[in-house]
Amino acid sequence: MSERTDTAEAVSQAIAARRELVNEAIPRQLPVQKPERLYEASRYLLDAGGKRLRPTVLLLAAEAIADVPPLSEDYREFPASDGSVDMMAAAVSIETIQSFTLIHDDIMDDDDMRRGVPAVHREFDLSTAILAGDTLYAKAFEHMLETGADAERSVRALSELATTCTKICEGQSCDIAFESKTDVTTDEYLQMVELKTAVLYAAAASIPAILLGADDAVDALYQYGLNIGRAFQIQDDLLDLTTPSEKLGKQRGSDLVENKQTIITLHARRQGVDVDSLVPEDDVEAVDEETVEQAVERLEEAGSIDFARDLAHDLIEEGKDHLRVLPDSEARDRLDDIADFLVEREY
Amino acid sequence: MSERTDTAEAVSQAIAARRELVNEAIPRQLPVQKPERLYEASRYLLDAGGKRLRPTVLLLAAEAIADVPPLSEDYREFPASDGSVDMMAAAVSIETIQSFTLIHDDIMDDDDMRRGVPAVHREFDLSTAILAGDTLYAKAFEHMLETGADAERSVRALSELATTCTKICEGQSCDIAFESKTDVTTDEYLQMVELKTAVLYAAAASIPAILLGADDAVDALYQYGLNIGRAFQIQDDLLDLTTPSEKLGKQRGSDLVENKQTIITLHARRQGVDVDSLVPEDDVEAVDEETVEQAVERLEEAGSIDFARDLAHDLIEEGKDHLRVLPDSEARDRLDDIADFLVEREY
Repeated sequence: MSERTDTAEAVSQAIAARRELVNEAIPRQLPVQKPERLYEASRYLLDAGGKRLRPTVLLLAAEAIADVPPLSEDYREFPASDGSVDMMAAAVSIETIQSFTLIHDDIMDDDDMRRGVPAVHREFDLSTAILAGDTLYAKAFEHMLETGADAERSVRALSELATTCTKICEGQSCDIAFESKTDVTTDEYLQMVELKTAVLYAAAASIPAILLGADDAVDALYQYGLNIGRAFQIQDDLLDLTTPSEKLGKQRGSDLVENKQTIITLHARRQGVDVDSLVPEDDVEAVDEETVEQAVERLEEAGSIDFARDLAHDLIEEGKDHLRVLPDSEARDRLDDIADFLVEREY
Repeated sequence: MSERTDTAEAVSQAIAARRELVNEAIPRQLPVQKPERLYEASRYLLDAGGKRLRPTVLLLAAEAIADVPPLSEDYREFPASDGSVDMMAAAVSIETIQSFTLIHDDIMDDDDMRRGVPAVHREFDLSTAILAGDTLYAKAFEHMLETGADAERSVRALSELATTCTKICEGQSCDIAFESKTDVTTDEYLQMVELKTAVLYAAAASIPAILLGADDAVDALYQYGLNIGRAFQIQDDLLDLTTPSEKLGKQRGSDLVENKQTIITLHARRQGVDVDSLVPEDDVEAVDEETVEQAVERLEEAGSIDFARDLAHDLIEEGKDHLRVLPDSEARDRLDDIADFLVEREY
């Protein structure tokens, strides 16, 4: 228990320290310039918070590859075999892609709230939100080109970023299609999650290996990211059901209201649960806590919550196994811890 | 007159020959794959037609730089100092960016028609249109990474592409802001046009110089593209007023209905014309030809049509001057002709 508490403390500190540095880097890399309204909208979600998990994974992976003590190096001049790399530029690039996808996803899902504040298309307007996403998209590529890495490595990192973006779009397209499909299989769902969510974790974990020329570690870190990314999404699906609305920053059970397929509802369906009638309301405004509570109980009885938890834990263990190619180091331990944190977090 | 006819014939053939090759390349570079609906939506506007002016400028610029006879080389293996470059991949990349911006712009402008077919968000739906644009965005970067050019040159080309996308977003943001502003200056308008439209022509013209390592020609070709791109937009503004709706593929005078600022309305305002009351209707469906005809007459009387025509021609001449850095060649002559064509075209 005490060891577990120590680990939880260490991972919290590891995330918090890097989050602070990423938070400082964002306004410098993405200053509000003319036209102001566009850049204010582009920065709106980034400034509203966020755990910065993907950039944290990227920065820790860089430290684990270089085998340096955590936080011992200036991320802007991170030591590479042939000079130095602005690893923070790569970290902000990944967070910028994440933010662009959230802005466009919120439009597509017609979601009103995000990170406890109005979605960008609500706070501003539809056109500004589309354009803010498009701007962040371009900026992410600009940032990834500004790491100062050797050109061959930059090209590989850019290529990874571009294919990642394509896959995210494909995943979001599948996710939307699933809403009007009742015969989605677990494999199809996990394939969608891989595309929509996991590939960005995979890019975050493997891009430092590309930029530092650690070719042997690229695939392993990619697989680490892919597995923890899959688990992250499953945990997100669980949290939507189990976390109070205040803590979640949006209505608890919104996935059930919006008929989103999740690994939990797919399992329940297979167990004969009439998932579509669990929450009859079609509007998150109209749903009450009591209905959500009963729906969750029904999913628990069907074993669907446990099924999702077990699957997430298996994926985390598989992800951690891939880290064994890296030298034993404090940074590698933190990557292990972050994997665990992703499925233990409560928000 | 006969020389002029010959030139018109030569430029038509130059565009048509390259358009055909670009049209063949698009389905190969952007095959419809899973999820099909997403890729069908991504290809929808590309397949609906288009003059392919930007890729044509790119391919001709490559030929002018390499000083090879037009159409003498395989664009997929275009001769570079240190091997060969897939110039067609770069050309399709530029057309892909153009298509992405059209899809998102049509959502923002709430336009129903484009190239004589429904806009993507009308033919499909809002979510699919946003995602189709996002997919093309990523694909354009993938294609620009697949030219096989030396890594240093690829990085420069990618950087040019990324900053171009940022500027297009900034330009579109200004364009939207201008709709609710009555005191836009001509300089502000031209700055907006540079960002929204001209930088993509500048990228199309200069990227072959980057990819072929013709460093001395990069700036001149960029300026050529920038000036003809500005003229192209002014001509577009003119055509909206002077071309019959059938030929235009959308309602003639739609810019007046939608209160779009153009160089023509800005000039007319300065001449004391009450531009806002020229077309009182707020809906392109409700407007009649007679109203548009009278509005155009009023703009002609104010000298605003001639002012725009003269400005476009001056920009074309300035653009052509920058081509003098290139060796005298047939391809360079065609770049000259295309510049003239941009302001002489009637559709």
